[in-house]
Amino acid sequence: MEPSSRSRDASPAVTLVAAVLPAGGSGERLGGATPKQFCTVQGRPLVSYTVRAMERISWISDIIVVVSPENIETMKSITEKYGHKRVTVVKGGVTRHRSIFNGLKVFAESELSNHLLQKPEVVIIHDAVRPFVEEDTLSKVVMAAKEYGAAGAIRPLVSTVIASAADGCLDHSLERARYRASEMPQAFLFDVIYKAYQQCTDYDLDYGTECLHLALKYCETNAKLVEGPADLWKVTYKRDLYAAESIVKDNLSQEVCVITDVKEAVAQLGFLFHESLKSQINVEAISIPLSKNDSHLQNLFSRQYYNFVCVNDKECAMEETQQLVDMLEKSNIPLLDPVVLIVVQLDISEKVPFSIGMEEITEMKKFAREVKKKNILVYGLLVQYK
Amino acid sequence: MEPSSRSRDASPAVTLVAAVLPAGGSGERLGGATPKQFCTVQGRPLVSYTVRAMERISWISDIIVVVSPENIETMKSITEKYGHKRVTVVKGGVTRHRSIFNGLKVFAESELSNHLLQKPEVVIIHDAVRPFVEEDTLSKVVMAAKEYGAAGAIRPLVSTVIASAADGCLDHSLERARYRASEMPQAFLFDVIYKAYQQCTDYDLDYGTECLHLALKYCETNAKLVEGPADLWKVTYKRDLYAAESIVKDNLSQEVCVITDVKEAVAQLGFLFHESLKSQINVEAISIPLSKNDSHLQNLFSRQYYNFVCVNDKECAMEETQQLVDMLEKSNIPLLDPVVLIVVQLDISEKVPFSIGMEEITEMKKFAREVKKKNILVYGLLVQYK
Repeated sequence: MEPSSRSRDASPAVTLVAAVLPAGGSGERLGGATPKQFCTVQGRPLVSYTVRAMERISWISDIIVVVSPENIETMKSITEKYGHKRVTVVKGGVTRHRSIFNGLKVFAESELSNHLLQKPEVVIIHDAVRPFVEEDTLSKVVMAAKEYGAAGAIRPLVSTVIASAADGCLDHSLERARYRASEMPQAFLFDVIYKAYQQCTDYDLDYGTECLHLALKYCETNAKLVEGPADLWKVTYKRDLYAAESIVKDNLSQEVCVITDVKEAVAQLGFLFHESLKSQINVEAISIPLSKNDSHLQNLFSRQYYNFVCVNDKECAMEETQQLVDMLEKSNIPLLDPVVLIVVQLDISEKVPFSIGMEEITEMKKFAREVKKKNILVYGLLVQYK
Repeated sequence: MEPSSRSRDASPAVTLVAAVLPAGGSGERLGGATPKQFCTVQGRPLVSYTVRAMERISWISDIIVVVSPENIETMKSITEKYGHKRVTVVKGGVTRHRSIFNGLKVFAESELSNHLLQKPEVVIIHDAVRPFVEEDTLSKVVMAAKEYGAAGAIRPLVSTVIASAADGCLDHSLERARYRASEMPQAFLFDVIYKAYQQCTDYDLDYGTECLHLALKYCETNAKLVEGPADLWKVTYKRDLYAAESIVKDNLSQEVCVITDVKEAVAQLGFLFHESLKSQINVEAISIPLSKNDSHLQNLFSRQYYNFVCVNDKECAMEETQQLVDMLEKSNIPLLDPVVLIVVQLDISEKVPFSIGMEEITEMKKFAREVKKKNILVYGLLVQYK
């Protein structure tokens, strides 16, 4: 995609957008006692990944997670533990449609929450068990919903779909090319989908599953279909949890956060990283002082998995590095996979290289050995910078 | 399922059954250069797992693997490396249907293979990228094919299926309960499916994918639909390979082979194992002397992943254990995960317990330490047996 169209697509910022995540499923198909949205992947519940995927996107104002009554406390503690900030937990109904309806009501009725949230123009509906949704896809369905009233991600069918006759035999098979699998995310003008839910029958609420169908049936709104990527798939079976685990592990090694208060340097370093590693790694650069008890940094740690590059030009890097490791340890990151921390010491003096003292190098090595036991890998890098 | 119906279902032994595995796919959806059937899972190509799943079943006579011309040598070397015995590798066509047709021709025309294979009454068609098919499912589709002429495994739809209009908008959604995903394995009376392929059009051969559809269209045969388990799914995307890897690992720890030439003992031990571990572990007991160069045992090692329990009542267990480990090492099992070998020494003498010498115990311990480096874990167990 060319840069201009991407930046246009990726920022429906002028529209007020909220997201409703139905997370009320019981997970029967998974064959376990824990509903799949609460199963842990790399030590973290699946639903937290999905919430994080939404939270990363600045133009989504509110994230409504709808859970069955017995899981409200679980969800609230997940929200707290992983520092999710824009989340409202809402009590679900006995079916998927009733749960989504409850989620929508917090924008329109004060029945289900303490305070009415600001009604969005567009609402995204996304399954809690589809954690790998990207901004690009969300942006596309939101823009399409604005234009068409409704939109939904679709995927090609993996298997042929067939209709069975009453005797359990094949009646006919569908021509695969004409049909698509309806996936999530979907997005709607709030007024369209809310009206559809208000007008639909109890039969719809109890036996239906497809929001696009309600918009069509009750608001004559033909949803725009948006081709989505393969990673949108729904975690349904146990094997899907295995797959999710592997994808999370893959992603872990492909993300790095550059932290520094050396403003000019980080800009340049971030740029170099981006240029040389581009498609292989996601680089986020933040300029932030490594002062003690920094809540922004703390939030960053507890919300997201990251490898870190810490750039500084102080005489002594040790203290800051220790601070950072302390914060990492105190954070709620499950340190199951090694967290890589690269300490970059910028030498901006005019002295000869290796002006850093041997003593400090020895100290750093010792420190690195120590924290390695805690699954934090510290590497040092001295850069002469003129 | 009750035992009587299970044993009836699981042995269509009087019917001559063959299997055709189309393995000509290019694996575009996987996003890699290697077609998915040749991607390795725990060091072994996916197609080898699928062949093994067929080979384990005594009532399947021939297994035809159809691959694209450039992969014939690859497939032949896989067959050799993993000791697959009943496999014939056949050159595929440019589409799935043409490949399957080629696979069927080896039973009816001498054009594609050196010698005509014996024409089966029923032929199973199964994807090479669905490695976890069980005997129970294969048996059900074969029995149904015998009765109805055609049969195929189906699964509930995970996503709603929708039809799109020409403008890329939703036309209508299908009522999920009425439809099923058509999966594999499928089975056919050979004469039915062969006639269907002979009569169908070039358009069918080039653009169709569904064998059940051909049987219906050209032989008026309505296939019987058989509900299959979730593990029948098709390895399609990279995440599916991750999932397959985890399932293989899980299965590894749930299989054990009891080897002995103490006939009575193994029967009893096998029974005890089965009773106490039932649903958690698969136990296969074979009675076989651990003589040198035993080709049956060698085949067992190279064809299947197993943990082993080796039961003997000889005075000295060491020699046999060493032989077994030698054979394991020389076999083609990729010893990526530890292979567990439990040596059970049956003490059938009337002496007091621990009649086994301290010297031997020390020797065994040393041996166990040694082979642990090769990822074979040897445990000893002394059982007083009267």
